[in-house]
Amino acid sequence: MVENQANERDLHSKLMEMIGRVEPLNEEAMKRADQHLLNLTKPPGSLGKLEDIATQLAGITGELHPDLSRKAIVVMAADHGVCEEGVSAFPAEVTPQMVLNFLAGGAAVNVLARQAGADVRCVDIGVNAELSHPQLISRKLMNGTCNIAKGPAMSRETAIEAVLVGIKVVEQLWQDGYRMFATGDMGIGNTTASSAVLAVLSGGSPEDATGRGTGINDERFAHKMAIIRRAIETNEPNSADPIDVLSKVGGLEIAGLAGVIIGAAAHRCPVVIDGFISSAAALLAAALCENSVHYMIGSHLSNERAHGQLLKEIGLSPVIHLSMRLGEGTGAALCFHFIEAAQRIMSEMATFDSAGVSRG
Amino acid sequence: MVENQANERDLHSKLMEMIGRVEPLNEEAMKRADQHLLNLTKPPGSLGKLEDIATQLAGITGELHPDLSRKAIVVMAADHGVCEEGVSAFPAEVTPQMVLNFLAGGAAVNVLARQAGADVRCVDIGVNAELSHPQLISRKLMNGTCNIAKGPAMSRETAIEAVLVGIKVVEQLWQDGYRMFATGDMGIGNTTASSAVLAVLSGGSPEDATGRGTGINDERFAHKMAIIRRAIETNEPNSADPIDVLSKVGGLEIAGLAGVIIGAAAHRCPVVIDGFISSAAALLAAALCENSVHYMIGSHLSNERAHGQLLKEIGLSPVIHLSMRLGEGTGAALCFHFIEAAQRIMSEMATFDSAGVSRG
Repeated sequence: MVENQANERDLHSKLMEMIGRVEPLNEEAMKRADQHLLNLTKPPGSLGKLEDIATQLAGITGELHPDLSRKAIVVMAADHGVCEEGVSAFPAEVTPQMVLNFLAGGAAVNVLARQAGADVRCVDIGVNAELSHPQLISRKLMNGTCNIAKGPAMSRETAIEAVLVGIKVVEQLWQDGYRMFATGDMGIGNTTASSAVLAVLSGGSPEDATGRGTGINDERFAHKMAIIRRAIETNEPNSADPIDVLSKVGGLEIAGLAGVIIGAAAHRCPVVIDGFISSAAALLAAALCENSVHYMIGSHLSNERAHGQLLKEIGLSPVIHLSMRLGEGTGAALCFHFIEAAQRIMSEMATFDSAGVSRG
Repeated sequence: MVENQANERDLHSKLMEMIGRVEPLNEEAMKRADQHLLNLTKPPGSLGKLEDIATQLAGITGELHPDLSRKAIVVMAADHGVCEEGVSAFPAEVTPQMVLNFLAGGAAVNVLARQAGADVRCVDIGVNAELSHPQLISRKLMNGTCNIAKGPAMSRETAIEAVLVGIKVVEQLWQDGYRMFATGDMGIGNTTASSAVLAVLSGGSPEDATGRGTGINDERFAHKMAIIRRAIETNEPNSADPIDVLSKVGGLEIAGLAGVIIGAAAHRCPVVIDGFISSAAALLAAALCENSVHYMIGSHLSNERAHGQLLKEIGLSPVIHLSMRLGEGTGAALCFHFIEAAQRIMSEMATFDSAGVSRG
């Protein structure tokens, strides 16, 4: 026990060290970007959030024309003990099956990543199956979480370790040359954990934070809401302590993705936030590390009922409204096109002077 | 006068002939597409509107994997006599200046088209300047419309001719191998005409249909609303007769774009609808040719105030929320990425059987 506490303190200080590395954006570069945008042949601000993204990229990287061509979608995969309560439309065995599908390149996120010129990097942070594949990043901490309806998902130590896994995966990818990241998830049952995290951190009701995930019927939906309420009542997570929330009602992939976000921010890289599960991770990252929000780029508004509320809690505004509800990083992959568009606008558009166009 | 009437009858019957060619979608192909989507490794319907687009493309082309790689953004450019009332933040001379910018490849739409692998085809259908350039499609019908605050924008004959110009441009592009189209516009003053069209066709108030265009202040905004009200009161367009609306309060590029839409539909090609001006053209196309709506793909929700209402009138739902308000086809260009995504999902994703993934 004493040893465990010492280990937890050690892990905690490592995490605090990484969080301390996340700096505010470069204001001077943002001003230069804004000035450049004003000279381009269009009414001021008329490219809307594309211009905001261009300015944000300057603030993140300190450059007006950063090279973000190497980009990775980090898909964190893990299982959820709460599945034994019957909260999902799919059986838990789908988690490892889909991990193999990611590795074979056949899932939706692979297709959309290829289109965007991004690489999918899949991390087993807690899948309840033996998985082995040359491309799999194996960082399994547990064979899935414990059932949150009966007790905590994981120990406090494991929660911190899981966040550190995400940070370290990004660190390695950064060393491999990646300069932009996106979050993706796989884990049958993970909308249940995400809803619980949202309810606790926002102070809202579990019912308002719950949606239908992969597509459950009315009966199972009511049951899912009751299970989330029970998980919160049983575990009494402290909303002021994000690690407590993560360990009691969270998930291993959610913790890992919070780490991916903090890691990207620490390396001054933009990180695109996917759907509901990724946004729960982003809310935790924001609670752990306020500055990390400046490195996040919101992608899509998922069809999962509470996603709009969740994004509002973080302060992100979604730019893609395709009514998707798949996760995996699919919405984030589509957003890469808009980020590239913002970069091309900065690099390729004519100025009023160069094109001989009158100003308003 | 008798000759004019005969000419108008001739033009009208040509238009009716083209409209008659626009058929409903291929239901059988849509069913096959839906069936294929159900077999892919994802919860049913979880890719939302990407799946709707895939199904629509099958209905349009009759094929599950149509080759839509050659795509053109048709930018119709024209001037507006109503500019003399001071309705815009930019001087009218910007219309021809921007046409030259399109032809030189320096405008926002050129940048976004290049990214999407699309070609920009610029049509002078009524710019108030002598323009000559090897890449310009010169189909000038007038040197800009007449001032709608004082009388009709153009004759009924010219309005029909302008729609036919759009149809014929698409016909030529189709012969050149293009299989997907997007609408784009350039014309200082054209939000004024578009708002007037919306107000008349929707039966709403001119004030509700009006926005700030390229960015006018409160005073000019109030003035713009008054001018639009005056244009409608002066011209008394018949809301049941789209050509009457076009000729009295419309614009040459708006008419041309309605033709582009009908032409694309007649050739069973998808046509992506850009922002406010393009949507006014789409509303007119829908009024002229009900079936044409099935060939339209909505792109973005512009920041122009009445755009959401306008899209609702047509029955389109925007998938991109970037708060853009530039026109030119910029929102449509970004939507090409989603259309390609839908096509890749159809072609590249694994099925439950092929990947060995359990169904829900």
